Amino acid sequence: MRADARCLVCHLNQALRVFNKYMRSEEEKWERLKSVMDTLKKAKWGMKPIEIAEILYPALEKMFNVKDVYEQEKRKSNEMAYKMLGRFEKVIRSFSDPLYDAAKLAIAGNLIDLGTPSWNEDMVYRKIAEILEKPFGISDFERFKEELSKAVSVLYIVDNAGEIVFDRFFIEMMKEYNKALDVIVAAKNKPIINDATVREAEEIMAGVASVIDSGMTVPGTIIDRGTDNFRKLFFKSDLVISKGQGNFEGIVGEKGGNVYFLLTVKCDVVADYLNVPVGTMVFMKKRE
Amino acid sequence: MRADARCLVCHLNQALRVFNKYMRSEEEKWERLKSVMDTLKKAKWGMKPIEIAEILYPALEKMFNVKDVYEQEKRKSNEMAYKMLGRFEKVIRSFSDPLYDAAKLAIAGNLIDLGTPSWNEDMVYRKIAEILEKPFGISDFERFKEELSKAVSVLYIVDNAGEIVFDRFFIEMMKEYNKALDVIVAAKNKPIINDATVREAEEIMAGVASVIDSGMTVPGTIIDRGTDNFRKLFFKSDLVISKGQGNFEGIVGEKGGNVYFLLTVKCDVVADYLNVPVGTMVFMKKRE
Repeated sequence: MRADARCLVCHLNQALRVFNKYMRSEEEKWERLKSVMDTLKKAKWGMKPIEIAEILYPALEKMFNVKDVYEQEKRKSNEMAYKMLGRFEKVIRSFSDPLYDAAKLAIAGNLIDLGTPSWNEDMVYRKIAEILEKPFGISDFERFKEELSKAVSVLYIVDNAGEIVFDRFFIEMMKEYNKALDVIVAAKNKPIINDATVREAEEIMAGVASVIDSGMTVPGTIIDRGTDNFRKLFFKSDLVISKGQGNFEGIVGEKGGNVYFLLTVKCDVVADYLNVPVGTMVFMKKRE
Repeated sequence: MRADARCLVCHLNQALRVFNKYMRSEEEKWERLKSVMDTLKKAKWGMKPIEIAEILYPALEKMFNVKDVYEQEKRKSNEMAYKMLGRFEKVIRSFSDPLYDAAKLAIAGNLIDLGTPSWNEDMVYRKIAEILEKPFGISDFERFKEELSKAVSVLYIVDNAGEIVFDRFFIEMMKEYNKALDVIVAAKNKPIINDATVREAEEIMAGVASVIDSGMTVPGTIIDRGTDNFRKLFFKSDLVISKGQGNFEGIVGEKGGNVYFLLTVKCDVVADYLNVPVGTMVFMKKRE
């Protein structure tokens, strides 16, 4: 999926969010934003949105001399997600189709920023409960379930910290639904934005799935850039689950892989592409 | 009021809105946005937000070889406002304090973009009716009313097309409340964004108020830059009414003038300044 001019503006807003973490002086933010504008001018027409992030974030890491910009927020998101799972797991297991609601929970985790400092546990609980009531805006879930029942190998490409705790639960439900299933989780070795890293994924997926390095340095997936192992699994697995908007941006429109996209539409650019409103929950099989 | 880094990003979004009017090619928008980034780098720290517009819009006018970027939209907004006034005038006149509700209507017109192409008459009617139900978030209305009863001269600095039709009605209500009142309307000679020009204001204010050129080339008011006549009226009038966010940005924090601000808070920067949420309706006396 190709980035458009709105993606450039979005990345300036992302830079401002990082500025607010590391700078107090408004004048300094003003001047630094101008230097980020120069950095973003390197982005070439035809790039995917996640490739703009690959230009922006290394520049920000250099600017503030940090390696993992959202390290704290990621930890807080995971903690909150564990608390939420503690409250939702039993209820979802009691539903008629726990697989369906576990998928919803995994997508709900993609919608809300579990690390928002001003939110307490009850607020997050209510937000998730609200989301669970809503149907998917695009749903190939029944087809997925059918394919899942016959599948053996699944490659699960995770997205952000926080929601990855719900991903684990969704994987557990998949494995209860099909006992023969072998799930491999792909994450990134190097941190970018709030994406879950291999180290973080290994901790959370322990006992449920093994974790591999996808080889990505973008906040999403560009298949050609994957490690040999990642590409082999991407094309050969019975099912590939692509979580979140960044992976969607990179994989949609590309050939190969039996991919299901699970995401919440977070911006106008993706909303226009899918022709749905921002906020839509999507469970969609990739068309060639 | 000083602009901050968010105002730079906002002006890029404003450029995109103009791009969408005049360009079809997404690649061209992408490249032109980069050239707008260069243009905005000329904005100096310490400027007011409206001074950034004064850098941006002349560049856009040159880019597309137009003199009045939103000419059509302004005409459509005025037409819609006349239709709305036809539906609201009688009701408001029947209320216990028509002055209060006429002020609300004038501020409601500031909140909604009356020229939004996808809105029909009934949608706009419902939106305005909803807004009229809401109280002011900041209100010095009672004090204004008291001052108005003793005033003779009023300088009314208008803001956008569309809402200016409601401004006329508010001025009529002021003059019915105090028959001795003389109201002079200040507008801009040169078009900028969707601000009402002198020519447009003269047509709408006919029979109610005379119109002067404020001398502004920014989408708001920077007192020092006014014509001699404007500055004289600003400092000598019994009351000055400053309509909209642009005039607020320019006048707040400056000395002199017995100013009441009527606006809807439209962005985070002004919301933070006033410590109220975006969307708040404000009727506020200027403090020195």
